[in-house]
Amino acid sequence: MYHQPTLLLHKQKALKNMQFMLEKARKNEVRLRPHFKTHQSHEVGRWFREMGVQAITVASLKMAKYFAQDGWEDITVAIPFAPYNHIEINVLAKKISLNLITASPDNVQILSENLAEKVGIYLKIDVGTHRTGFLPHEKEAIEKTFEIIDNQPLITFKGFLAHAGHTYNARSHAEIEKIYHESISILQKLKNQYISRYPHLEISVGDTPSCSVINDFSGVDEIRPGNFVFYDLMQANISSCEEAQIAVALACPIIAKHKERLQIVIHGGAVHLSKDNVVLENGQKYFGKIVKLQENGWSEAIEGLLLVSVSQEHGIIQATPETFDLFQIGDEIGILPIHSCLVADLMGEFCVI
Amino acid sequence: MYHQPTLLLHKQKALKNMQFMLEKARKNEVRLRPHFKTHQSHEVGRWFREMGVQAITVASLKMAKYFAQDGWEDITVAIPFAPYNHIEINVLAKKISLNLITASPDNVQILSENLAEKVGIYLKIDVGTHRTGFLPHEKEAIEKTFEIIDNQPLITFKGFLAHAGHTYNARSHAEIEKIYHESISILQKLKNQYISRYPHLEISVGDTPSCSVINDFSGVDEIRPGNFVFYDLMQANISSCEEAQIAVALACPIIAKHKERLQIVIHGGAVHLSKDNVVLENGQKYFGKIVKLQENGWSEAIEGLLLVSVSQEHGIIQATPETFDLFQIGDEIGILPIHSCLVADLMGEFCVI
Repeated sequence: MYHQPTLLLHKQKALKNMQFMLEKARKNEVRLRPHFKTHQSHEVGRWFREMGVQAITVASLKMAKYFAQDGWEDITVAIPFAPYNHIEINVLAKKISLNLITASPDNVQILSENLAEKVGIYLKIDVGTHRTGFLPHEKEAIEKTFEIIDNQPLITFKGFLAHAGHTYNARSHAEIEKIYHESISILQKLKNQYISRYPHLEISVGDTPSCSVINDFSGVDEIRPGNFVFYDLMQANISSCEEAQIAVALACPIIAKHKERLQIVIHGGAVHLSKDNVVLENGQKYFGKIVKLQENGWSEAIEGLLLVSVSQEHGIIQATPETFDLFQIGDEIGILPIHSCLVADLMGEFCVI
Repeated sequence: MYHQPTLLLHKQKALKNMQFMLEKARKNEVRLRPHFKTHQSHEVGRWFREMGVQAITVASLKMAKYFAQDGWEDITVAIPFAPYNHIEINVLAKKISLNLITASPDNVQILSENLAEKVGIYLKIDVGTHRTGFLPHEKEAIEKTFEIIDNQPLITFKGFLAHAGHTYNARSHAEIEKIYHESISILQKLKNQYISRYPHLEISVGDTPSCSVINDFSGVDEIRPGNFVFYDLMQANISSCEEAQIAVALACPIIAKHKERLQIVIHGGAVHLSKDNVVLENGQKYFGKIVKLQENGWSEAIEGLLLVSVSQEHGIIQATPETFDLFQIGDEIGILPIHSCLVADLMGEFCVI
């Protein structure tokens, strides 16, 4: 028993998820550069290294530094860089092969004036998610960026990079495939325009739903999924994994039961699980599904129990007359999370089983 | 400049918020037992101590341990305890005066069989929030709990404790006052029933909206607000504070701008701000307001800029034609948070200004 909210990591499930993605990458002859923002763990990183992975993606310079400390030497920071971060960038780029991404010439201009070490730069392309990136038709801004890069010998243009985050709105393989093919088509057109000027330019794509569902990565040089190592209920809801593949669960003690409302209260809330949720067709929001903890693992999700509310440290499970008495005060249950990246970030550590 | 998401704590504003609540407590002759889950910081805790506060509230045994290490000797853990946590409870209770809360006789029964040190226990009463607590009419469960307590000399019954969390649905002082008075009436009735059996029983109430708005705490022995030390946009939205009282802001660098959508992208997302949000009357969700950072502080929230979306590390600010050019890539802006407790938990440290 764990006595307090504890993040369990099912090593066998995670290794299987890793192997699945790695084999797919090898078959397609694309580089798997997994996004380490999902686990943020030296230990899980080493499992990838033991399988032959040498290049990784992270979500901030801070995370790049953390993994560089564990011997990673080829890191892409997949968020447009804050341009006055040049001191941190120079320190890191002296030690490792560092790739940055940009969505505008302005970041590159400021950096180019302060750069002291070699870096690679990808142009982030907005393939339809509309979070950030050059729009494919913003030729002037793209050209301006190339001009700055060409005038700064410390910067190498690495290629076009995209994150089709709008696959997270998909609910079937067909929808994911459609978004993937639209994205690739946009990136291919850009590649065709610039390949003679930059013969080594690469195409890098990234989201876990696409990488989970697509089997043919023709035209792509690199894939950067992250979440697949653990998966979660969001991914299962999109249809990019099965619930049985989810490799993390939060163990939580039951601290109260309220029969008149058929509710079970756990120690386990927003500071452990985040407030990410999925909305059912009937409008019911939920923040996790409930599993029975077993020696070395957990059961399938139990029908008739759903985590329907979280506050800072409390979670409320809605039961039915049939399920209310399955667990008692003092028992510990497992919660399959909605978004494993945020849970891992919040918890900071795992209990590997 | 901070170059990465950095939580700024405006010490003068926080001290003013603390003094305001402390004076109110003194005038009413109630004990202020502030909830330290909001800041989770030894440093901020010491500011309270310097003002004469001696008793505190926390949200977990882990947090109790953290503050006991800094010399706090009177701590209430305001979440029903997980009953098999007795080893941790015994260790803490040996060192400090520890109060626990329960919403059922079951927790107390299991603990009473394993207890080795003195603890105080409050009965958590559900005054209408329906998260947890004994319902006021659950006389049988309440009596059963008293019976267990009476048979275990290491346990002292301390009183009835409530958290009227449904004040968070209020939008005016009148609504908050109504909820407060209903809660007090429920607790007073219970007190009248049991005062002859437990002459020292206390009434402890807790939410920041009530404690901010109510001026007369007649009949109450202790108040446990937490959020008031920093406040946030949620509290301003409830009308329990002014935006000018908010004592924390997240400094974030601007990493991209997208003119065609009038959107500004910052490094600053769900791992810094959480996904808590407020929904405007027109249905627009927002995750923070934008302020201009100044020497030793920040401006009022800027009209026409709103943080409308967050992903793991990115935030998207919606601008207007008038506000889009106020800030450029590389500038740093401040975000007033929706829920300062979650932000402080996520960030883990402050930069005190």
